[in-house]
Amino acid sequence: MKFAVVPEHIRDLQPYKAGKTLQEVLDVYKPERIAKLASNENRMGCSPAALKAAQDTFGQIMNYPDPSSRALRAEIAKMHGIKPENVIAGNGSEGVMSLITRTFFKDTDQALTAAGTFIGFWVLINSRGVKLVKVPLTQNYAFDLQALADAITEETRVVYLANPNNPTGTYFTKQEFEWFMTQVPEHVLVIMDEAYYEYAKDEPNYPDSMRYRMDNVITLRTFSKGYGLAGFRVGYGMAHEDLIGNLMKVKLPFEPGSPSQAAALAALRDTEFIERSVELVLRGKERLYAFLDKKGMNYVKSASNSVMMVFDNENDAAHFTDKMLERGVVLRHLPAFGIPEGVRITIGLEEDMTQFEWAFEQVVK
Amino acid sequence: MKFAVVPEHIRDLQPYKAGKTLQEVLDVYKPERIAKLASNENRMGCSPAALKAAQDTFGQIMNYPDPSSRALRAEIAKMHGIKPENVIAGNGSEGVMSLITRTFFKDTDQALTAAGTFIGFWVLINSRGVKLVKVPLTQNYAFDLQALADAITEETRVVYLANPNNPTGTYFTKQEFEWFMTQVPEHVLVIMDEAYYEYAKDEPNYPDSMRYRMDNVITLRTFSKGYGLAGFRVGYGMAHEDLIGNLMKVKLPFEPGSPSQAAALAALRDTEFIERSVELVLRGKERLYAFLDKKGMNYVKSASNSVMMVFDNENDAAHFTDKMLERGVVLRHLPAFGIPEGVRITIGLEEDMTQFEWAFEQVVK
Repeated sequence: MKFAVVPEHIRDLQPYKAGKTLQEVLDVYKPERIAKLASNENRMGCSPAALKAAQDTFGQIMNYPDPSSRALRAEIAKMHGIKPENVIAGNGSEGVMSLITRTFFKDTDQALTAAGTFIGFWVLINSRGVKLVKVPLTQNYAFDLQALADAITEETRVVYLANPNNPTGTYFTKQEFEWFMTQVPEHVLVIMDEAYYEYAKDEPNYPDSMRYRMDNVITLRTFSKGYGLAGFRVGYGMAHEDLIGNLMKVKLPFEPGSPSQAAALAALRDTEFIERSVELVLRGKERLYAFLDKKGMNYVKSASNSVMMVFDNENDAAHFTDKMLERGVVLRHLPAFGIPEGVRITIGLEEDMTQFEWAFEQVVK
Repeated sequence: MKFAVVPEHIRDLQPYKAGKTLQEVLDVYKPERIAKLASNENRMGCSPAALKAAQDTFGQIMNYPDPSSRALRAEIAKMHGIKPENVIAGNGSEGVMSLITRTFFKDTDQALTAAGTFIGFWVLINSRGVKLVKVPLTQNYAFDLQALADAITEETRVVYLANPNNPTGTYFTKQEFEWFMTQVPEHVLVIMDEAYYEYAKDEPNYPDSMRYRMDNVITLRTFSKGYGLAGFRVGYGMAHEDLIGNLMKVKLPFEPGSPSQAAALAALRDTEFIERSVELVLRGKERLYAFLDKKGMNYVKSASNSVMMVFDNENDAAHFTDKMLERGVVLRHLPAFGIPEGVRITIGLEEDMTQFEWAFEQVVK
């Protein structure tokens, strides 16, 4: 016997499948070293000031966190010249996305996004039980804004754009974004997922969505990528205060936790750490591009902290990923992201990229 | 202008209202000391081993947490003689409750609970947009299981029971629970919120819902109360593996965070700390009962770590709470919990209770 009453859209959901743990990779393949390049984490670690700030909350850890993340939201607001009422902090930017799906949908609404983008959004929509419409990426693995605009209907409630896109690293320009927004009716909320903003902000013509302040756009950023705090689960959203106010009503009162709020605040202030992180990735990308060019491999130029290699087919991509894993290089094969021919490589430390090249030479002959 | 498309049930939600911060209390009333007795936190703090374990995760904080909290769930399972597949960890037990509301409801379903219980559940149901049916407490401020059983209909999907109840501290017995479950049809999921389990487990005839293993019951426990880890946001649910499996599909992959998982695991193993915490509360309750008896005050005997005083009316309760606050004693007046004549006092350290008595002598003449 079991509790039988489960809505169909929940029954149909696939459980999250984690890859091998590092320990499992070590146990099975016994590599000398692991290059963990599968999850777009910051291989430099994080700001020491963030850890210090988290630890400073330990003396009061028996108390509930500040329910409105006042200090953190005030700092974010100051950075962007907005009010704290325009900011919400959540359990990662995915946590804020989850709030959006719980706040703005009726059962008959629909969500619209690309067929090759962040899985987390798809899962949230599917678990909310509303219809998810996916539009193919362009041949260059970019968001097809024209096709997305064409796909908007009366039922569309939310459009999700990741800029730069995950896992492809592509971005759309100011001009493309501005044109797209002229096509979006007022009843549609646009989620601009800028999880990789810190890496992309200096790309030519990159549209920082915060410069527009449109009433039906929410900008999401995270501490899990550039700031290196993935383990603490903090992200934030910025939008019109009425929109944020509604999300705040749905948010669990005590998210994020106290050490997480404190770590994020300190990380924001450590501008030197984030600059060094971005520089490391820029250098690493140039090195990887040069290497892959020399080897005649296909890949997509990236505005984020990862680069997607493109193989002829799913089998080749899977084989490459497996063989690299045997040599301690953990990469992300992308069938679940809708790109079975793609393999995503996080840009890591110099020694990570050296290990990647060493393993590549053995795997691809 | 603003984003106008907000469902009515979201518009109608009240934002979470935090009380004064401790800093605000200090600034306004300048008490010599604060007795923070408003949130049922553990005034003893937490296990040092928990903090050590949290800190040990800092070296890997740039990495995402274990998405399935393997180590923590295995330990919880071992404690209860169940499988890890019967356990889910979330952002506090409220986080697991939120998952339940996102997993098992259709729009036409209803939830059923008491009119004087944990606000968090009401907010979750209201934000999910399904109908919430509330049954008055008994005259003794206990769950009225007979009335709840009578109120179950075909539309009822979830019944929420807190045992002991928050904020009243009352509990229902094994016999009452067993009878109630005979009245619950299979299509109804019973949430047994046992956030105060550690304090209640030795009360006469207290029903530990884990001893029953019913397929339509989920038992919730938390690290925020007895374990003193409210700032870390960890709670867990235990149920049939099919039920847990569906919750796991809806859970954000990376909750709880890494330091939170580690702290909770270490806290579970520090049995000495939790025993001391429970003893402190037992002694503190006896002392408070004796004091209130001597003063001829009305209160409700409690199986949790707080005691509810009962005043003649809302005004008296509010006045008492305000006057105590001016003397640094922070209590919770309970209109939002549906009990406007009630004031909840967390059992604190001996010095907290001494300060309570000192302030009481000044306030009630």
